Amino acid sequence: SGTSDLIRATLFPGDGIGPEIASSVKEIFNAADVPIEWEEHYVGTEVDPRTQSFVTWESLESVRKNKVGLKGPMATPIGKGHRSLNLTLRKELNLYANVRPCYSLPGYKTRYDDVNLITIRENTEGEYSGLEHQVVRGVVESLKIITRQASLRVAEYAFYYAKAHGRERVSAIHKANIMQKTDGLFLKCCREVAERYPEIKYEEVVIDNCCMMLVKNPALFDVLVMPNLYGDIISDLCAGLIGGLGLTPSLNIGEGGIALAEAVHGSAPDIAGKNLANPTALLLSAVSMLRHLDLHDKADRIQDAVLKTIAEGEYRTADLGGSSKTSDFTKAIIDHL
Amino acid sequence: SGTSDLIRATLFPGDGIGPEIASSVKEIFNAADVPIEWEEHYVGTEVDPRTQSFVTWESLESVRKNKVGLKGPMATPIGKGHRSLNLTLRKELNLYANVRPCYSLPGYKTRYDDVNLITIRENTEGEYSGLEHQVVRGVVESLKIITRQASLRVAEYAFYYAKAHGRERVSAIHKANIMQKTDGLFLKCCREVAERYPEIKYEEVVIDNCCMMLVKNPALFDVLVMPNLYGDIISDLCAGLIGGLGLTPSLNIGEGGIALAEAVHGSAPDIAGKNLANPTALLLSAVSMLRHLDLHDKADRIQDAVLKTIAEGEYRTADLGGSSKTSDFTKAIIDHL
Ligand SMILES: CC(C)[C@H](C(=O)O)[C@@H](O)C(=O)O
Ligand SMILES: CC(C)[C@H](C(=O)O)[C@@H](O)C(=O)O
Repeated sequence: SGTSDLIRATLFPGDGIGPEIASSVKEIFNAADVPIEWEEHYVGTEVDPRTQSFVTWESLESVRKNKVGLKGPMATPIGKGHRSLNLTLRKELNLYANVRPCYSLPGYKTRYDDVNLITIRENTEGEYSGLEHQVVRGVVESLKIITRQASLRVAEYAFYYAKAHGRERVSAIHKANIMQKTDGLFLKCCREVAERYPEIKYEEVVIDNCCMMLVKNPALFDVLVMPNLYGDIISDLCAGLIGGLGLTPSLNIGEGGIALAEAVHGSAPDIAGKNLANPTALLLSAVSMLRHLDLHDKADRIQDAVLKTIAEGEYRTADLGGSSKTSDFTKAIIDHL
Repeated sequence: SGTSDLIRATLFPGDGIGPEIASSVKEIFNAADVPIEWEEHYVGTEVDPRTQSFVTWESLESVRKNKVGLKGPMATPIGKGHRSLNLTLRKELNLYANVRPCYSLPGYKTRYDDVNLITIRENTEGEYSGLEHQVVRGVVESLKIITRQASLRVAEYAFYYAKAHGRERVSAIHKANIMQKTDGLFLKCCREVAERYPEIKYEEVVIDNCCMMLVKNPALFDVLVMPNLYGDIISDLCAGLIGGLGLTPSLNIGEGGIALAEAVHGSAPDIAGKNLANPTALLLSAVSMLRHLDLHDKADRIQDAVLKTIAEGEYRTADLGGSSKTSDFTKAIIDHL
């Protein structure tokens, strides 16, 4: 088969440990014969006048063209007025839904062994509007914006996802008892979509109660959909249940069928370049990307190898309590393919 | 000693199971010779024109005069435009700090056995401003308001509390990486106060990361202080770590030295009047009230009796997996005094 059968995907290795864990993904994809050709981009170190940000025009164009990409951790340049690179990508590529599957890893013990959750976060508005100002000295306000359009599309995605993945229930998380208009509109949109999916159960849970129930018994939930900030909070809480951000994949869905998978942990500059980083989150994100491309066989094969390697416990990186090098862990996964 | 030595305190038994659990508190206080005389108020079932709400003027005046009170769960009357009774009390009495101690109960097993946290929540502003409107059809916004005055006073209370209770550290919880102006002002105020308490360690933790760390290892935290909505979320999360809202006390601190203790769980109308309710949260709230009054001997005696009764496990209400009646549990506590 020629290169014409290859799917082109954008790769942002990112900063800090990014290049190492991206190498790990590339090696494993090669070993598994994944028909993907990477188009690598480093987002720049200077403001690109065409994007008004550190994210270069070429980077954005690459994702827009390929419609699929994988992204390592990016450190936002220090200094006033620079919007985080992550937020810039979300905004520019209109990545409206952030999907984070979160399940207990067999053999990796935490306080919870029954986690199997999907959080779906509205990713473009809400508390992230960036609209803030000082009213008078000592009084500041920020605007939370909720729109019918963004709420409907993320709700639609949540129900579509639930149905496509054989999930039973979607819970909309909100604080509409306090924010009746904004969160109320979000719920209204969820209800509208729910009506078109009678086979999926639908419920509404207040965010404070949701967090309490999640730590008491995560098995009470299935797919959760929510506005931006609640999604930020709850997806990290859920990651904590199974061991942390180093183990949880993330996939951003954008308009026009774009999907950008990303590791949501930090760039860990302290261990960068030392062959100590854990590539699991980026690997599992890459697996999410493969599923999005309907490459389920490849996805299963890689996911199984990653989970087996972690379960066996012989090769674990330091963050998981082991002393393996990134390269040994990667090799062990390849041996399990 | 005559009745002139008695401290007058307002009691709102509240709705649903409220009266039963309030009776339990009264019996136990009697048995422990607590020098408190209760002034009971039921907040009304009709709007009081003087307060424009279901909370009667007399109720508010009682707390303002006595400066100390205890409150059971209140069900907010159904119907548009009625602000929750809880919120009305917070607003009218200017209850600016909500303090929730949260510690593992000996003998009551959850996934966590090392919890010992205090959450201190700004209770008057932030996302609870009630300012919301529709901009155009399908676009709504709500205003989050942060003021220097309210941030300073809750920060001040947090550090004062930490010092008074021999705590080592205060963590300010925020999302200032996104809401730089509002949460940024909150942090600025915390830093100013922190400087006046050099003996207390101070740190700042982003809310998503905080939630992840709390579920991974709650022992990482000590006293947490935060804006209103984050406090709502995190205090419920923390309650979940030790078993739920049925076990966690809450104390609201207001201007002019007012303290209103409250059980933050619901009014559980389904089991109301059946002698099945668990009075623990209201009892431990009453204990917080005693500590606020510097009645530490009485507080210790009652708290020990409650904890012993729960630890022994013979008398537990249904929510804790037992089959005791409220009255038997209450009697067991009295026997342990
Ligand atoms: C780094 C930060 C701006 C970001 C967010 O708040 O969305 C992060 O927490 C995430 O979840 O991707
Ligand atoms: C009932 C609700 C309005 C209230 C709040 O959000 O503050 C509750 O969750 C609480 O924590 O007391």
